[in-house]
Amino acid sequence: MPYRDEQLTEEKVFKDPVHRYIHVRDKVIWDLVGTAEFQRLRRVKQLGTTNLTFHGAEHSRFNHSLGVYEIVRRILENFRDQPEWDPSERLVCLCAALLHDLGHGPFSHSFEKVFNLDHEEFTRAIILGNTEVNAVLRRVDESFPQDVADVINKTYANKLVVSLISSQIDADRMDYLQRDAYFTGVSYGYFDMERILRVMRPLEDQLVIKESGMHAVEDYIMSRYQMYWQVYFHPVTRSAEVILTKILHRAMHLYHSNKYQFALKPRHFESFFNKEISVEDYLKLDENIVYYYFQIWQEENDEILANLCRRFVNRDLFKYIEFDPGNRYRELIELKEAFAEAGIDPAYYLEVDSSSDLPYDFYRPGEEEERLPIHLLFPNGELKELSRLSDIVEAISGKKRTDHKLYFPKDLIEQLPEESQAKKRILEILRG
Amino acid sequence: MPYRDEQLTEEKVFKDPVHRYIHVRDKVIWDLVGTAEFQRLRRVKQLGTTNLTFHGAEHSRFNHSLGVYEIVRRILENFRDQPEWDPSERLVCLCAALLHDLGHGPFSHSFEKVFNLDHEEFTRAIILGNTEVNAVLRRVDESFPQDVADVINKTYANKLVVSLISSQIDADRMDYLQRDAYFTGVSYGYFDMERILRVMRPLEDQLVIKESGMHAVEDYIMSRYQMYWQVYFHPVTRSAEVILTKILHRAMHLYHSNKYQFALKPRHFESFFNKEISVEDYLKLDENIVYYYFQIWQEENDEILANLCRRFVNRDLFKYIEFDPGNRYRELIELKEAFAEAGIDPAYYLEVDSSSDLPYDFYRPGEEEERLPIHLLFPNGELKELSRLSDIVEAISGKKRTDHKLYFPKDLIEQLPEESQAKKRILEILRG
Amino acid sequence: MPYRDEQLTEEKVFKDPVHRYIHVRDKVIWDLVGTAEFQRLRRVKQLGTTNLTFHGAEHSRFNHSLGVYEIVRRILENFRDQPEWDPSERLVCLCAALLHDLGHGPFSHSFEKVFNLDHEEFTRAIILGNTEVNAVLRRVDESFPQDVADVINKTYANKLVVSLISSQIDADRMDYLQRDAYFTGVSYGYFDMERILRVMRPLEDQLVIKESGMHAVEDYIMSRYQMYWQVYFHPVTRSAEVILTKILHRAMHLYHSNKYQFALKPRHFESFFNKEISVEDYLKLDENIVYYYFQIWQEENDEILANLCRRFVNRDLFKYIEFDPGNRYRELIELKEAFAEAGIDPAYYLEVDSSSDLPYDFYRPGEEEERLPIHLLFPNGELKELSRLSDIVEAISGKKRTDHKLYFPKDLIEQLPEESQAKKRILEILRG
Amino acid sequence: MPYRDEQLTEEKVFKDPVHRYIHVRDKVIWDLVGTAEFQRLRRVKQLGTTNLTFHGAEHSRFNHSLGVYEIVRRILENFRDQPEWDPSERLVCLCAALLHDLGHGPFSHSFEKVFNLDHEEFTRAIILGNTEVNAVLRRVDESFPQDVADVINKTYANKLVVSLISSQIDADRMDYLQRDAYFTGVSYGYFDMERILRVMRPLEDQLVIKESGMHAVEDYIMSRYQMYWQVYFHPVTRSAEVILTKILHRAMHLYHSNKYQFALKPRHFESFFNKEISVEDYLKLDENIVYYYFQIWQEENDEILANLCRRFVNRDLFKYIEFDPGNRYRELIELKEAFAEAGIDPAYYLEVDSSSDLPYDFYRPGEEEERLPIHLLFPNGELKELSRLSDIVEAISGKKRTDHKLYFPKDLIEQLPEESQAKKRILEILRG
Repeated sequence: MPYRDEQLTEEKVFKDPVHRYIHVRDKVIWDLVGTAEFQRLRRVKQLGTTNLTFHGAEHSRFNHSLGVYEIVRRILENFRDQPEWDPSERLVCLCAALLHDLGHGPFSHSFEKVFNLDHEEFTRAIILGNTEVNAVLRRVDESFPQDVADVINKTYANKLVVSLISSQIDADRMDYLQRDAYFTGVSYGYFDMERILRVMRPLEDQLVIKESGMHAVEDYIMSRYQMYWQVYFHPVTRSAEVILTKILHRAMHLYHSNKYQFALKPRHFESFFNKEISVEDYLKLDENIVYYYFQIWQEENDEILANLCRRFVNRDLFKYIEFDPGNRYRELIELKEAFAEAGIDPAYYLEVDSSSDLPYDFYRPGEEEERLPIHLLFPNGELKELSRLSDIVEAISGKKRTDHKLYFPKDLIEQLPEESQAKKRILEILRG
Repeated sequence: MPYRDEQLTEEKVFKDPVHRYIHVRDKVIWDLVGTAEFQRLRRVKQLGTTNLTFHGAEHSRFNHSLGVYEIVRRILENFRDQPEWDPSERLVCLCAALLHDLGHGPFSHSFEKVFNLDHEEFTRAIILGNTEVNAVLRRVDESFPQDVADVINKTYANKLVVSLISSQIDADRMDYLQRDAYFTGVSYGYFDMERILRVMRPLEDQLVIKESGMHAVEDYIMSRYQMYWQVYFHPVTRSAEVILTKILHRAMHLYHSNKYQFALKPRHFESFFNKEISVEDYLKLDENIVYYYFQIWQEENDEILANLCRRFVNRDLFKYIEFDPGNRYRELIELKEAFAEAGIDPAYYLEVDSSSDLPYDFYRPGEEEERLPIHLLFPNGELKELSRLSDIVEAISGKKRTDHKLYFPKDLIEQLPEESQAKKRILEILRG
Repeated sequence: MPYRDEQLTEEKVFKDPVHRYIHVRDKVIWDLVGTAEFQRLRRVKQLGTTNLTFHGAEHSRFNHSLGVYEIVRRILENFRDQPEWDPSERLVCLCAALLHDLGHGPFSHSFEKVFNLDHEEFTRAIILGNTEVNAVLRRVDESFPQDVADVINKTYANKLVVSLISSQIDADRMDYLQRDAYFTGVSYGYFDMERILRVMRPLEDQLVIKESGMHAVEDYIMSRYQMYWQVYFHPVTRSAEVILTKILHRAMHLYHSNKYQFALKPRHFESFFNKEISVEDYLKLDENIVYYYFQIWQEENDEILANLCRRFVNRDLFKYIEFDPGNRYRELIELKEAFAEAGIDPAYYLEVDSSSDLPYDFYRPGEEEERLPIHLLFPNGELKELSRLSDIVEAISGKKRTDHKLYFPKDLIEQLPEESQAKKRILEILRG
Repeated sequence: MPYRDEQLTEEKVFKDPVHRYIHVRDKVIWDLVGTAEFQRLRRVKQLGTTNLTFHGAEHSRFNHSLGVYEIVRRILENFRDQPEWDPSERLVCLCAALLHDLGHGPFSHSFEKVFNLDHEEFTRAIILGNTEVNAVLRRVDESFPQDVADVINKTYANKLVVSLISSQIDADRMDYLQRDAYFTGVSYGYFDMERILRVMRPLEDQLVIKESGMHAVEDYIMSRYQMYWQVYFHPVTRSAEVILTKILHRAMHLYHSNKYQFALKPRHFESFFNKEISVEDYLKLDENIVYYYFQIWQEENDEILANLCRRFVNRDLFKYIEFDPGNRYRELIELKEAFAEAGIDPAYYLEVDSSSDLPYDFYRPGEEEERLPIHLLFPNGELKELSRLSDIVEAISGKKRTDHKLYFPKDLIEQLPEESQAKKRILEILRG
């Protein structure tokens, strides 16, 4: 169904370091960018704590969301002459691209883990709720918010539309690889996107790639692989996440224990601690708010909370060693006991973090529920799945690589008295 | 005097998008980066409200400070063989480069204007006060903090050292032009820094440029000129600054008027409102804190404060027109009267902002007190001032260009009833 | 009149380092690229002898011609919605852009000077003559070759079409600045072309620039200024050109003097020496041919010819000093006498070269016959000439800067016997 | 043994698009660059016929040779503090890096194949022969030319020195990947060289990589893989090489058949045809000379020679299809017969080219005689071979991938009369 698609009197642009310019002709897009809910994404960093490792990575989700929109806009411009493409789907694609991360909160990964949240649920709730975004979308059509939500939810009838934003080679990934590479300054995230866009074809319910573009896609898959191991799973970043998680746990623990009196009450966190989070509450929590609490909490009476906050704010992170809990389970137990004996609470100061817990899905056909594999289109119309043709993709796609690290506060251990038996045992185990 | 300059066992690097890598060999530098006061710079954006215009400009002063350090490090590496260079000054140069912006608070420009502050004073106070930075510097030598402060203060005996960080072509400017260009995505801030570093020579008490490098310096000056007009003085950025200033004024006004009861008391601002700011208080205020207040204040009872905060947080900025108050003073008075009549307080909703009020000093020899002009060194040893040789620099250096804009809330005016006489007068004057 | 504009079944691309991809949809364009005359441009360097100074500058006119085509293609894509633009002019624009340099021979600048040629005349002759290019163009329409020639000749009725390829801010200049910067590796040639294309508007018979793009145009003008002085007028490049010119003069002299017997007869040069050059002869001469002769001529019996060829081939160039013949005319005469006395023929071993002889026309409104000044378009429809608004452009536009250099073979002078009076006089004058 | 290593009074630089600047402090290096033999490399393209596919790839071996020198220079600067590095080897490294490709002739690959040459033999002969290069090297020490030749020949005693220029991750490869990527404009050749240089360590007789740099090395290996398949083995480039080979074969055939009278005798090729090539003859042959002959030979009486030359000069190349001669040997025989029957000599107009014939050695430990595998150095001093740690490298290293193509002149076949039986058979087989 064709929507009411009002055009701006003159095209507007945003200057963007990655795509040079982001072009807007549709009034809906312009108005969506102006909503309070979308502007809020300026206050949520795209890469959470990564800027503590790569200082350039201070870019926000606002930044990335515009980029995903722009890539989809360019793809659709290429699709204009493709008979398999239904041009009436254009607006829902653009809006879904722009809004697909709308429900991200601060440090999403850690918050989702601690409070068992799903940011995609909040994205839907914001789009369908009583919000500025919803009002703008309804101006197109009463059913339009639901359509946009369905695309993001991957339940939209036209799967081709879904795959633009959510597939093995979608606009989301293409933007974040390039953008995260640009802002961190690493060279691994680049690939020839212009070529990929040129060889992308709509075919029934999926995006396929002309076979001549196979090497460009290989290069994209390799960029993804490299960015994961070089940037996204960087152990220093994960150390900051460990601390962040511990802060949230400690604050929740104190909140629920009736004895403790906060100097600064965790008002913005209450609904999280009580697991009754309204959209309104959710939208109020951004990184500034979280940082505000952590800064103030550096002076709380609870020494654990204060100490963890001081670590997070001043980047005084935990150290780490390789440590596979599968092989060294016995030692891990001993370590916890020694920590406890030494007066360092292992619940807050010891953590095994495994990077395969993190979303690590670069190309595993069949294993994932939602991500379709990439198909190459041959001149004779045949389709072949990428890993059957590419040795490199085949090499990566089958294997699950896991990286286990043990995080701990080296400084606290060093401060233990020389004669402490616990200290000796701790150091022994850590030395391996 | 040679300092105790302990080396790290192995060089460390930071990945930097602008200089590729930032190299650290001196333990002092590494330790300074780790102090709470330096880490705080992560929470102060380099370009204040510019990210509301150029969404990529989310980089912090932490980012820039490392860059200035790196440039000075490279300059000094080139100077190793120069007889005019005293290698014992190396460490004070590096420290001063790293710490030169340590006293910047959030949105410095606006805060300095409203509260009549000087961030350089705070830089000195932090270096000389009871801080982690001071402790690290004192490990070099008891007098070392004072030396570093003197360099930043431009009172250090060796003026050559001062000019590395503060002159017409210093490491500070070379870093911010490139960095701000990189993060905003504009192409104007680039120049051939590697060439400029190659032609830079220490000569008595100044840095001079070999004459063969004149065109590279011209290009640098032009980058500066372009960045000022394209980025730093962008009217949308200034609109956000106008609102920010008004918020601070309004909050101070309410604080001093005994009648108003804040829902959220401006605890972190009190020392600013009372003009009794301790270093400790100052260090507690970063952008997260400011944003926290502004977000909460969106629901204050005072409608002006709440409205201005909503505008700032949601980027609902004032519109602007060209307006030279020198020629249109009478109209400005009328406009204020009409605003008042319409119930829109002109003290908070009307502002003429002139960009020549902002630091605009690219090359005006003689006019500025502190910035030395750039001298070109000829093979015969002669020195000539740059603007005498370059038509382009001459063209820029003499003239003061001012850009006046009038900022106002277009939406509030449009909401006035059609029959309002004030509305008519306002619109007449705004149309010019 | 709409031409027969056959489309390729599928868009083809050339990978281009400057514009990323060059897109071809029109069969005429594809066929023109395949002609022998266009392929010949691969054997003519874009910057003649510049690669002897900047070793990266080995790119051909083939390279540049594709780039100019691509820029015009992008401009016209932007013009699709502009009512002032007549879409039936599209194909003539694209062809003229592609072919505008078709008549360039090897080392055009020197050949044109020595033999008093005009490459534009040859461009026309090739387009209108019995060539593959002509045959392809005629497939569009019998009168089409003439139309294309008229555009290049600047006599085409629609001046807007002419200005795309030949004005102060045309596709030709925009391509060569960026391309020459890319291949030399200097940073000066960059400007924000994407922005300029966005603010370019067809208006009656000229291309104008929306006023909001003034700074981008300033930056483009500055790039041009810098490229001229840093690259195009580089004295080492000019030294090679001086030698090249001398070789041509010497060979012509020997050819016309009946006495000399060439070991390798200048067969390919005869028509040039006799000033009766057919298109066919002209097309046969490319840089490989010229180099072949010069390499063989290193062993000619004529010592001057052989020596000059050895210098050119092995980059054993003349040295240079600043030397204004206006002020030092007397000395120049003496120098020639001393050279002659020392047995070094001043006709071939001494040359004053002034760079303002070279095409140096960045923005001098009124002085040039053909280049229209750049007009800025204001929102109210008013047009203003650029230099009235831009201090920087004003600074450059009025002034003619000339750079005089004297070129001479330092090695030959040094080899003169110590006691030679001529040597003494020569060295005295050269020292100034 | 320390050489006489005279320094320039002032460092000189070459502007380089890939490494920004190439720095020269040693007089030997400066003088080597100025020799006739080194300047000759300006007239030999780095990538032979690749510019017929990627028009930007017009860069010379001169270009690349300076780049390899610069990378070695930077590596050695990093090695200054490494105890395992013997600083007296510095000069021989720099000279060998600069001169390692000195023996390359025009279109080396094809010439070596047709005439059974080895460019490395010529490199040695030039270094040790009566040349300007030899004279410059002897100024260092009488035995120095031999040392330099030994390094290039991989027989030098210190294998660490050899591995700088010739190993799996040497300066040669690091330069050409980046340089060829830059000039072709593809994005695949980039990797983080600065990081690799930082993690490279001299260890006994090899260069090893600190384990922390594994991902950077993986990325380098992938760049190499991509450049091979995207650029170096591009079928259009190979088509031009096929034609070139055929021209050389045809000219040699005509030369040896006593009947044919060349209009232009192949004087420069005689020593090649007779397999008695002196260094002097060899140095006289560059790409300009080859092109001169090919251009003139377009009008030879021998139709095959003339036709092949016209194809090469005007880029009228052979078409190709996938064709594995292992499976389709019978068809290949038939095809040749049909060609012969149709009067198209299959010896010159039909060729199966397999890209694994080309140097394709990215990382196959054990299979290659000369290239050492890459070893990773762990903090505990242990060394591990790269492919044992990297799945990706493992995936590539074992497998030999071959790409077979059949090249033929489609136009000649199409011109055969419709009723020709041979034509029918040819088309049938080509359709597969």
